[in-house]
Amino acid sequence: MHRHIVNRPEQAAEEALEGLALTHPHLLAYDRAVGIVTRAQPARDKVGLVSGGGSGHEPLHAGFVGVGMLDVAVPGALFASPTALQVHTGTVAADSGRGVVQIVKNYTGDVLNFQIAGELAEDDAVKTEVVLVDDDLATDAEDDGPGRRGTAAVLAVEKICGAAAEAGTDLVEVAALGRRVARSARTLSLALTAGTHPGADGPAFVLPDGEVELGVGIHGERGTGRIPFADADTLIAQLVDPVVAALGLRRGSAVIAIVNGLGGTSPLDVSVAARTVHHHLGALGVTIERSLAGSYVTSLDMHGISVTLLPADADLLPLWDAPVRTPALTW
Amino acid sequence: MHRHIVNRPEQAAEEALEGLALTHPHLLAYDRAVGIVTRAQPARDKVGLVSGGGSGHEPLHAGFVGVGMLDVAVPGALFASPTALQVHTGTVAADSGRGVVQIVKNYTGDVLNFQIAGELAEDDAVKTEVVLVDDDLATDAEDDGPGRRGTAAVLAVEKICGAAAEAGTDLVEVAALGRRVARSARTLSLALTAGTHPGADGPAFVLPDGEVELGVGIHGERGTGRIPFADADTLIAQLVDPVVAALGLRRGSAVIAIVNGLGGTSPLDVSVAARTVHHHLGALGVTIERSLAGSYVTSLDMHGISVTLLPADADLLPLWDAPVRTPALTW
Repeated sequence: MHRHIVNRPEQAAEEALEGLALTHPHLLAYDRAVGIVTRAQPARDKVGLVSGGGSGHEPLHAGFVGVGMLDVAVPGALFASPTALQVHTGTVAADSGRGVVQIVKNYTGDVLNFQIAGELAEDDAVKTEVVLVDDDLATDAEDDGPGRRGTAAVLAVEKICGAAAEAGTDLVEVAALGRRVARSARTLSLALTAGTHPGADGPAFVLPDGEVELGVGIHGERGTGRIPFADADTLIAQLVDPVVAALGLRRGSAVIAIVNGLGGTSPLDVSVAARTVHHHLGALGVTIERSLAGSYVTSLDMHGISVTLLPADADLLPLWDAPVRTPALTW
Repeated sequence: MHRHIVNRPEQAAEEALEGLALTHPHLLAYDRAVGIVTRAQPARDKVGLVSGGGSGHEPLHAGFVGVGMLDVAVPGALFASPTALQVHTGTVAADSGRGVVQIVKNYTGDVLNFQIAGELAEDDAVKTEVVLVDDDLATDAEDDGPGRRGTAAVLAVEKICGAAAEAGTDLVEVAALGRRVARSARTLSLALTAGTHPGADGPAFVLPDGEVELGVGIHGERGTGRIPFADADTLIAQLVDPVVAALGLRRGSAVIAIVNGLGGTSPLDVSVAARTVHHHLGALGVTIERSLAGSYVTSLDMHGISVTLLPADADLLPLWDAPVRTPALTW
């Protein structure tokens, strides 16, 4: 059984947020009663950024609250959308007079609750724009379904919109930039072990030793199929190649890469995966202009890796490089 | 079975270092042939800091190479000491004319190889001082054995010595400061699941669902005994209380706290553990002046937590707060 270091499972998400805020009191504050995380020193006279969604993906989103990224995070319970009222409160809290960009991962509950919250905020004379993040290549489909899921590309959207907002860019432009990043980023994930919900008896699904789940979602959603367990180079190539194809990358392309551990992945494994991503893209003639490797958008204690790529357009790099000071990302 | 995302297991440590260096080319460089990690821009005219030891504890030590911490890291293979020649090369590389402090975790192989390397370096007219880190309370004993193991307190020693060295403090003083931190810091760890060596069939030891290993070491060494599995508050109190007693902390004491995930611990669990540490010390009247919560000194994919406390002496806080820019710690 995969056990967790938690108290009552239904309080785990809130207690983790409390722990984060106690560890970083100079960066953020958690209002447990209202259910939002805000900067310790609210920003003034800039476009506000709010994001949120279910918990269980720590450090997302609260770990990205701070100068250069989010103003407010609105966390739901584990794998459950925050309420529309909670998002409304968070959206209003993110406003310093120049409107608020809501960064929303594409899940039905999140989309609905952010939409209602946005309408409520407009009633309060807070202008809002929505950036929908739907980067998960495993859920690409031609039909009229819910569309692709939102996963680790949300981190790139938050970083780049955050830098633009900090630089004084206006609401419409920050949102347009975010939509451009979301549109141009794709992610693919694999899992060796599914995560276990605190309080549950076992993981979301069980894999035989010889198999790996390809295209897994960050809520333990099953993937597109199973592939044989293999060495890192073989496994990670099966994440990189479809993303390269989807983005139409070719020799001479330049990208930003995010190599992401899914929660139970050791730093050793994440670094080995990062090496493969660098070498494999290098062999394809694709230049990695910037990259991250760490556990940023997790799925409880899932042991797995996701790879996110987005084209490193020249105007994005200064925004990527701009200072950021949050619990989970600082430079 | 716990599987790893690696290629050939015997190359996993080197490939992880390569991945780290590829991800952070502006911070560090890895010379795989020589087996050392150096700053991308070597420092000038300051006391050098070198640390190292077996790999499998990522991000330690290479993840702490950069401005404000280490000049050089010397990684061995997984759980195996680097060679004396490797340490010698690293020690000489860390020197910019003002001598080198070697920060050594207390394990027989490391102690021996750093000692030989120090003697070789003295032959090269590089002055060295050793700071031995032996913080693991689980291995406290009155006998003439090898003494306490070195674990997560090494991070505090590297941070504080690093800041002092950056500020121009001389060799003897930096070493004295490091020894003071090492002497005053204690750590205690627990594991819910042992780590699995890449290539091994299973974890270092197996625990029944109802039990937790208390006092576990970072190489999967068995602890001082087993305690019943329980909620986070109950478990983490059993780490905090012995450390509080060992340090003689009392109402009004002030500490720096490091809440550390052991490699396979999800960010959710680490944050919940951090909350308990804050609340539990608060109830004892002990103030946490500064704290960290994350996975810094790991044991492959072990699922567990360590808690390190050290008195927050007034002269240490500015050194703790001083800027640092490394892959794993930046502010």
